[in-house]
Amino acid sequence: MPAYATNMRFKFPILALTLEIITIILYAVFVVYDDGKSSHHDDHSNKTEHDSNPLSLYPMFQDVHVMIFIGFGFLMTFLKRYGFSSVGINLLLAAFGLQWGLLLQNFWHMEDGKIKVGIVNMINADFSTATVLISFGAVLGKTSPVQLLIMTLLEITTFAINEHIVVEILKASDIGASMTIHAFGAYFGLAAARMLYRPALRNGHENDGSVYHSDMFAMIGTVYLWMFWPSFNSAIAEPGFPQLVAITNTYFSLAACALSAYATSSLVEHNGKLDMVHIQNATLAGGVAVGTCANMTIGPFGAMVIGLLAGIISTLGFKFLTPILASSLGIQDTCGVHNLHGMPGILGGLAGIVAAALGKLQGGDPTKQAAGLASSLGFALVGGAITGLIMKLPFWSQPPDQNCFDDSIYWEVPEEEDDNEESLAHGDHSKNKTEP
Amino acid sequence: MPAYATNMRFKFPILALTLEIITIILYAVFVVYDDGKSSHHDDHSNKTEHDSNPLSLYPMFQDVHVMIFIGFGFLMTFLKRYGFSSVGINLLLAAFGLQWGLLLQNFWHMEDGKIKVGIVNMINADFSTATVLISFGAVLGKTSPVQLLIMTLLEITTFAINEHIVVEILKASDIGASMTIHAFGAYFGLAAARMLYRPALRNGHENDGSVYHSDMFAMIGTVYLWMFWPSFNSAIAEPGFPQLVAITNTYFSLAACALSAYATSSLVEHNGKLDMVHIQNATLAGGVAVGTCANMTIGPFGAMVIGLLAGIISTLGFKFLTPILASSLGIQDTCGVHNLHGMPGILGGLAGIVAAALGKLQGGDPTKQAAGLASSLGFALVGGAITGLIMKLPFWSQPPDQNCFDDSIYWEVPEEEDDNEESLAHGDHSKNKTEP
Amino acid sequence: MPAYATNMRFKFPILALTLEIITIILYAVFVVYDDGKSSHHDDHSNKTEHDSNPLSLYPMFQDVHVMIFIGFGFLMTFLKRYGFSSVGINLLLAAFGLQWGLLLQNFWHMEDGKIKVGIVNMINADFSTATVLISFGAVLGKTSPVQLLIMTLLEITTFAINEHIVVEILKASDIGASMTIHAFGAYFGLAAARMLYRPALRNGHENDGSVYHSDMFAMIGTVYLWMFWPSFNSAIAEPGFPQLVAITNTYFSLAACALSAYATSSLVEHNGKLDMVHIQNATLAGGVAVGTCANMTIGPFGAMVIGLLAGIISTLGFKFLTPILASSLGIQDTCGVHNLHGMPGILGGLAGIVAAALGKLQGGDPTKQAAGLASSLGFALVGGAITGLIMKLPFWSQPPDQNCFDDSIYWEVPEEEDDNEESLAHGDHSKNKTEP
Repeated sequence: MPAYATNMRFKFPILALTLEIITIILYAVFVVYDDGKSSHHDDHSNKTEHDSNPLSLYPMFQDVHVMIFIGFGFLMTFLKRYGFSSVGINLLLAAFGLQWGLLLQNFWHMEDGKIKVGIVNMINADFSTATVLISFGAVLGKTSPVQLLIMTLLEITTFAINEHIVVEILKASDIGASMTIHAFGAYFGLAAARMLYRPALRNGHENDGSVYHSDMFAMIGTVYLWMFWPSFNSAIAEPGFPQLVAITNTYFSLAACALSAYATSSLVEHNGKLDMVHIQNATLAGGVAVGTCANMTIGPFGAMVIGLLAGIISTLGFKFLTPILASSLGIQDTCGVHNLHGMPGILGGLAGIVAAALGKLQGGDPTKQAAGLASSLGFALVGGAITGLIMKLPFWSQPPDQNCFDDSIYWEVPEEEDDNEESLAHGDHSKNKTEP
Repeated sequence: MPAYATNMRFKFPILALTLEIITIILYAVFVVYDDGKSSHHDDHSNKTEHDSNPLSLYPMFQDVHVMIFIGFGFLMTFLKRYGFSSVGINLLLAAFGLQWGLLLQNFWHMEDGKIKVGIVNMINADFSTATVLISFGAVLGKTSPVQLLIMTLLEITTFAINEHIVVEILKASDIGASMTIHAFGAYFGLAAARMLYRPALRNGHENDGSVYHSDMFAMIGTVYLWMFWPSFNSAIAEPGFPQLVAITNTYFSLAACALSAYATSSLVEHNGKLDMVHIQNATLAGGVAVGTCANMTIGPFGAMVIGLLAGIISTLGFKFLTPILASSLGIQDTCGVHNLHGMPGILGGLAGIVAAALGKLQGGDPTKQAAGLASSLGFALVGGAITGLIMKLPFWSQPPDQNCFDDSIYWEVPEEEDDNEESLAHGDHSKNKTEP
Repeated sequence: MPAYATNMRFKFPILALTLEIITIILYAVFVVYDDGKSSHHDDHSNKTEHDSNPLSLYPMFQDVHVMIFIGFGFLMTFLKRYGFSSVGINLLLAAFGLQWGLLLQNFWHMEDGKIKVGIVNMINADFSTATVLISFGAVLGKTSPVQLLIMTLLEITTFAINEHIVVEILKASDIGASMTIHAFGAYFGLAAARMLYRPALRNGHENDGSVYHSDMFAMIGTVYLWMFWPSFNSAIAEPGFPQLVAITNTYFSLAACALSAYATSSLVEHNGKLDMVHIQNATLAGGVAVGTCANMTIGPFGAMVIGLLAGIISTLGFKFLTPILASSLGIQDTCGVHNLHGMPGILGGLAGIVAAALGKLQGGDPTKQAAGLASSLGFALVGGAITGLIMKLPFWSQPPDQNCFDDSIYWEVPEEEDDNEESLAHGDHSKNKTEP
């Protein structure tokens, strides 16, 4: 591939501005403020009308917002030379995704031809971007911003269809979205990654790894996700007791998961040491896995068992499964989303089936739950594969193999050293932006 | 200037302690808790009495608090050797500023000679510090903590006068403070920067630039500002629907702004690459520009148009206008506050005039809006110029040209390397604080 | 000590999983959701039944959550080679501690043999972990994760006993926990550190210091603690006016403290420079010191005086007392918790005695307050000494002296340089995890 092919000077701005202008036109036609004057219908849960204060969920919205932009963004900054893209493209994709998601999620139930925007829609819009950010983790470092904007458009569209089917038609319960967001996002991304398989990266890439302080930046993402996950799983739960249950279950699942992730990491690592990859990711699996049954009365004890298992499965996945996926199946999963969102998402779906069978949710039905899981996986795999094929078209400014995992292909990158003396010592000032 | 002139051992502690002790005495005389027993009057908006819970705005206060201390603080850490000052002096100035601001903003409407403190006053006090932190961005790296404390004192005083005139006398609406905070803070800082012009820095300074991980720290600031801006623009809006409108408008303006900032950055940069300076700043211009009319019913579509324009204008400003300001007008604007707060602030003021003319705010009046904008710019330019002249007096421990943008002139700075082994390899241990 | 003795491959996983499984069993037996159907009794304050919304304190809970996991975690990342442990082990200890704390704090007042979990218990559970994280600061870098899990178990147990005595039996008021958390955690940790004294570290250790960007990471912790401290001190205060008073007092105490910490740092440092150690820590002392009397009507002015004193005392402690403690008493206090939590905690306890004597709290009693302080110090010193002796047993995988303050003994640590080219230039790739 010739070097100039990666130049995105016109492709990217034209695509981004076109998408934004189309979106603005659609908003001009369809979107108005929610004046609270009619009963609205929320497409992500079976909750009833919220209390009279239109801002009662605003603090939870902001927690979710932090998870999307700081949590996902910084979690991916563990790569040594890809921090700008991780946090920066995360912002770009989520900023577009929330606008697009809000439109698609609400096309199903407009009132008088209008979508009414309030805090609940904004929470759901943020949720819809999470699918893209999960898939972004699978293809991180091997895709251009142009490709990723296309993925955002297609994935959120697929997500909105599947979510509508799972929640509105199949009537499955998925309050914390283990199935419709986590499993969906992971398998969508893995299917796309399979299509984008790069044989030349089979033996790794020198930039596909962390350095000390990039791991520290990633921990910012991890800890924010860990702290605010109770808000993610409860934000659209029915107010009052069900919402408290969702918070409590998630809090305890994550606490138990942290212990099992640390223990398992030490058990499988050389000399009993802890591995940052496990800590950054597997400690969060409890939040994913308890999602579907977060609002079910499984007991704090039940939530902790789910978290414990999720931490173990996720850590083992990073250690043993990810290398096999890459070498045998051609699935190069940069962030290991299969271990954080894929398997724990399925575990969450299964837990939901069991909990529904045990009568832990009023009106829950294990068959509907199973159908919801199957639908999510099906849409993810098919949608991800098709999207991957489209992303594979050769004119989206994708990076050549040797420039993968490197910000400098799409970003102006300053000199690389911490201090000036250092780069002086190397006699190379050519990348210093402050030079005339 | 002799080297010892920068020693602030007595000047700084004496100034800081004197200011604090005077403040404490004034608080002892004037400030009491708000027991909610009388109607209070809020000096920053036309909102009516809040609901009965005195803490209903506390979550929004904390969002604003994060913007002030994390958002502004880390946004300025992009400089390679100036992170301690950026986040540390930001904390110092805001900690003093909020105490001073609370006094001055409420001197206008005391009850029985007392200022009653509640959450709304604390939000407004935090707001008043934002003006100083914006101006700090213009003079960043070229001023001493002594000078900056003086600027804080004078700028907040000027701000309180202008805000009183704009909101209480001219009756202009400026809910998100595009005019009274953003444009004011920017032009105050630029006027001061003009007075403090340093010809020797005309061709740049080796420390006036970023390194890879200083840009990452700055992104923490950017993302927090981006996420919590809806709280900034809505915190003191009338509860209920107007507050929801302010949140929604800001959310969408920022989303659209992100897309246009990314697109424009790629369009104007070499090889279509993205520039971190643009991403760190111009993505936020939508929050500034939608401020004045955040609580007006301009529609999500209207907010997005404002955000789209703001992102473009701000990015173009960084690329083309900042170099001209420095070379032709002698305005050295370290953080480019003209592009993030100045022009978008004026855009916000103009949007407010148009929105008022279109009847988007009950009781809005375009003439009053225009007068509010003019007043803000006038006070900013005159106040900033006078403050700059005072800051120019030669005994405030200001840094010599060659030590600009360098923490080590005012801070004990540890060795510069990531690891000890490294600096051992370079044979230089002299800066290691742990050495005996 | 032979090198293999630090291998924690079996000790750590077995201990962590055993503790977690025992905890889960206890939860299965004792812990249920709080369905709000009976009057509950809060063990940390004298507050009455909260309002009907079970989530009204959730935003404050999340603020406290951020302080525990981001605040404490990142505050300790100032060490150049110990960031993984600081933020990672902080997460581990707090995740276990909150589960354990919730059990122990509520054993005293179960209803029908059950502990009912709601937001207030979760806040208190988070609080209980703060004692451990404070003590962690004293022994940071010189202990293994195995030792620290044992400390967590024993310290939270001791804390729960003392807290019950102070609040329920002695009826002392300690809303912001200056005595029961801060002074307790500090002196517990210092007593343990005394038992774990390492003579070989008497002259310092090359890794016991910061580098530029580790100080920046630490500032993330500092600023979050500073911002959210009003939530810490008010979270379990009686709703309404008392909670507002607690917020206001803490806000002003911290603002005044910031000024005095900066001023004192410049006054005592070489050439009037600021010292990051002081800024990272002493700026927070105002939050500690105002804790006990946060909900007392001491006036904003009174809070500011407390903050002013705390900032001065804390800074002077770092400068003059810490070296003496280490050299004369054999107390090696890595993070200086004596200066941030110990002395300011005692100051807070004393301020509470004075405020109670002055009638600033309805029903307050200086004698009870003094008894509460004495009890907290007594339990801390005795409990900490015994815990330290247990931690000293030679089979807990503790680090040898030369490997103190070094993540690589318990963590897989990536190559140390910012960029790959760098370490290539140095011809050393041995630590690069991405190598085959």
